[in-house]
Amino acid sequence: MADTQGRVITCKAAVAWEPNKPLVIEDVEVAPPQAGEVRIKILYTALCHTDAYTWSGKVSTFLLPISSDPEGLFPCILGHEAAGIVESVGEGVTEVQAGDHVIPCYQAECRECKFCKSGKTNLCGKVRAATGVGVMMNDRKSRFSINGKPIYHFMGTSTFSEYTVVHDVSVAKIDPQAPLEKVCLLGCGVPTGLGAVWNTAKVEPGSNVAVFGLGTVGLAVAEGAKTAELHGLLALISTPRSLTQNFGVTEFVNPNEHDKPIQQVIVDLTDGGVDYSFECIGNVKVMRAALECCHKGWGTSVIVGVAASGEEISTRPFQLVTGRVWKGTAFGGFKGRSQVPWLVEKYMKKEIKVDEYITHNMTLNDINQAFDLMHHGSCLRCVLSMH
Amino acid sequence: MADTQGRVITCKAAVAWEPNKPLVIEDVEVAPPQAGEVRIKILYTALCHTDAYTWSGKVSTFLLPISSDPEGLFPCILGHEAAGIVESVGEGVTEVQAGDHVIPCYQAECRECKFCKSGKTNLCGKVRAATGVGVMMNDRKSRFSINGKPIYHFMGTSTFSEYTVVHDVSVAKIDPQAPLEKVCLLGCGVPTGLGAVWNTAKVEPGSNVAVFGLGTVGLAVAEGAKTAELHGLLALISTPRSLTQNFGVTEFVNPNEHDKPIQQVIVDLTDGGVDYSFECIGNVKVMRAALECCHKGWGTSVIVGVAASGEEISTRPFQLVTGRVWKGTAFGGFKGRSQVPWLVEKYMKKEIKVDEYITHNMTLNDINQAFDLMHHGSCLRCVLSMH
Ligand SMILES: [Zn+2]
Ligand SMILES: [Zn+2]
Ligand SMILES: [Zn+2]
Ligand SMILES: [Zn+2]
Repeated sequence: MADTQGRVITCKAAVAWEPNKPLVIEDVEVAPPQAGEVRIKILYTALCHTDAYTWSGKVSTFLLPISSDPEGLFPCILGHEAAGIVESVGEGVTEVQAGDHVIPCYQAECRECKFCKSGKTNLCGKVRAATGVGVMMNDRKSRFSINGKPIYHFMGTSTFSEYTVVHDVSVAKIDPQAPLEKVCLLGCGVPTGLGAVWNTAKVEPGSNVAVFGLGTVGLAVAEGAKTAELHGLLALISTPRSLTQNFGVTEFVNPNEHDKPIQQVIVDLTDGGVDYSFECIGNVKVMRAALECCHKGWGTSVIVGVAASGEEISTRPFQLVTGRVWKGTAFGGFKGRSQVPWLVEKYMKKEIKVDEYITHNMTLNDINQAFDLMHHGSCLRCVLSMH
Repeated sequence: MADTQGRVITCKAAVAWEPNKPLVIEDVEVAPPQAGEVRIKILYTALCHTDAYTWSGKVSTFLLPISSDPEGLFPCILGHEAAGIVESVGEGVTEVQAGDHVIPCYQAECRECKFCKSGKTNLCGKVRAATGVGVMMNDRKSRFSINGKPIYHFMGTSTFSEYTVVHDVSVAKIDPQAPLEKVCLLGCGVPTGLGAVWNTAKVEPGSNVAVFGLGTVGLAVAEGAKTAELHGLLALISTPRSLTQNFGVTEFVNPNEHDKPIQQVIVDLTDGGVDYSFECIGNVKVMRAALECCHKGWGTSVIVGVAASGEEISTRPFQLVTGRVWKGTAFGGFKGRSQVPWLVEKYMKKEIKVDEYITHNMTLNDINQAFDLMHHGSCLRCVLSMH
């Protein structure tokens, strides 16, 4: 048992004091876990575009439980793609204990709410009312503070801290043999792309697929689609990059090289349109193109990217009446506690890629530099070591 | 064999000379069927909102094969919900012969095109290029004329005529015992509603369903849903009407009686939203409400109504990312030649209603009066006798 159990831990964390201002490495006090909570020593965390998005102040309501459009809550500790080891658990926590290797899951899984029991979705309603507003369910307060001033949680994970506290329904216990510096990626981007193909679209062999945007999520879509022995896989991207080799893309289409609307270009290239398309950028205009490049009669488009709050998608109803289907996905439809361990096993058996997405390794101290890197074409995922 | 075979037939038809001007009963010359064509003596035809829509000049592109927004083609003979008897057939027509009782199908079914063979859609590509522009495939000309001036076909059916010529892929041969004055309704509205539930949404028992608009199509949705032993069926309608009894509606919601957006009213009434919703009006704002009143995680909304050309639907992508699905349907996903005869059988076995939708019976001469009736709440379907 850790000698820190039951005590406040003071550790380093990257604090976002306000939108768009550089993160500051601070000494943060992390309170012990209360009932139903788990305190985790984060060893590795990656950066994801949703962190950058929130930091920029363009918070997507996707992250929030309420239907209005609230702003991001500052100051906060961002980060949601990580791996670590349980330091201690609060009262009533039975599924994990100190020493367990875990991945925090921003999509909780309580197994008892209406959503979890529906068998139709991975969204869980149990803790969203709290995680959406940066606090813990138990007392509606944060476990993070600096000199008594509370610092908000983010997505129920806040992994840009050496220690974090999460709800027990948001912790996936994984194989202790798995390299945490790699499988931390299974906390967000890679499962989102794989699951969009496997769970949400259910792409069948012989299909034509188009992927819009080839960051980590888009590449994971490509990898997920490859397992379906596709007819063809088009990638829509303005700057083809060497990083995308080995991901099964059969053809690159650069929208900037065409005068026609890109949906028409794709329809022409594929004899009527693709069977499935995936928008992995978060641009509402691209979401429209992704729908409209689908084949009449059956083409299905999945929105994977996260748009800025307040933005809207649109199309003519004719597109749907003639058989196209418009869907979306969150965390690829995977249930965190049940399926993240399964994804870790698939990685250990070399059935899915993870290492290939990691283009940079840095430390928590370099986090602002790591965010800068995200805007460069050479970066897919940057993993920060916390120690 | 009819003594009219191979000869031009002069008969009465209601001609739409230009948008919004009263239809005129004219003596029209109907040419004999060419190869792959069937000439039908129409005995009964009903009026559908899509006829009125086209007549008003607000043609929906749904009816047309091209992605641009062409205007309706005038002069033309409208009508697409009818029943009759084959008068004669052209060369190569094998599936029907003179004397067969038939229902013309605006959704063709050729059984050999990419769409028909896909197993994923009822849309057929075979004759759309011709029917979309008011002519027949064979020579790209009309079979209707008045004093040598061609009159365009409409939806490949043109049933507001005592005789019409259609493609053989657009003819469903039905049980000769079936009363044509009733089953003519199985040419459009009733199958559209039933199929939206059975084929497109695949509503399962225990679901909550909302129907927006209770015309013939909306009531057929209600009837189709009733077979699924629903948890509840909400009907969204501004004027509850006595006609709607016997259709399984458990609750009426009048948008005019609420200050809150109707989607919020429904979410509150149903503990989070409905499992399925159906828009049967053709209003893009209502289509948005129908999507947004669906339950997070799995709610599916089906667009059944036909919107005016150029109009667009919109919503926040958040609605889809959190698990709602947006679809549409045309002729309820039914394959005309294969499944309309099956629907007729279901009617004969009293498994589906048809008679209950018929509120008025008139003759072809009264067609303008019949169109006026469509705007009155007391009218669902008006069936015109052609003789
Ligand atoms: Zn992420
Ligand atoms: Zn749950
Ligand atoms: Zn109709
Ligand atoms: Zn076909």
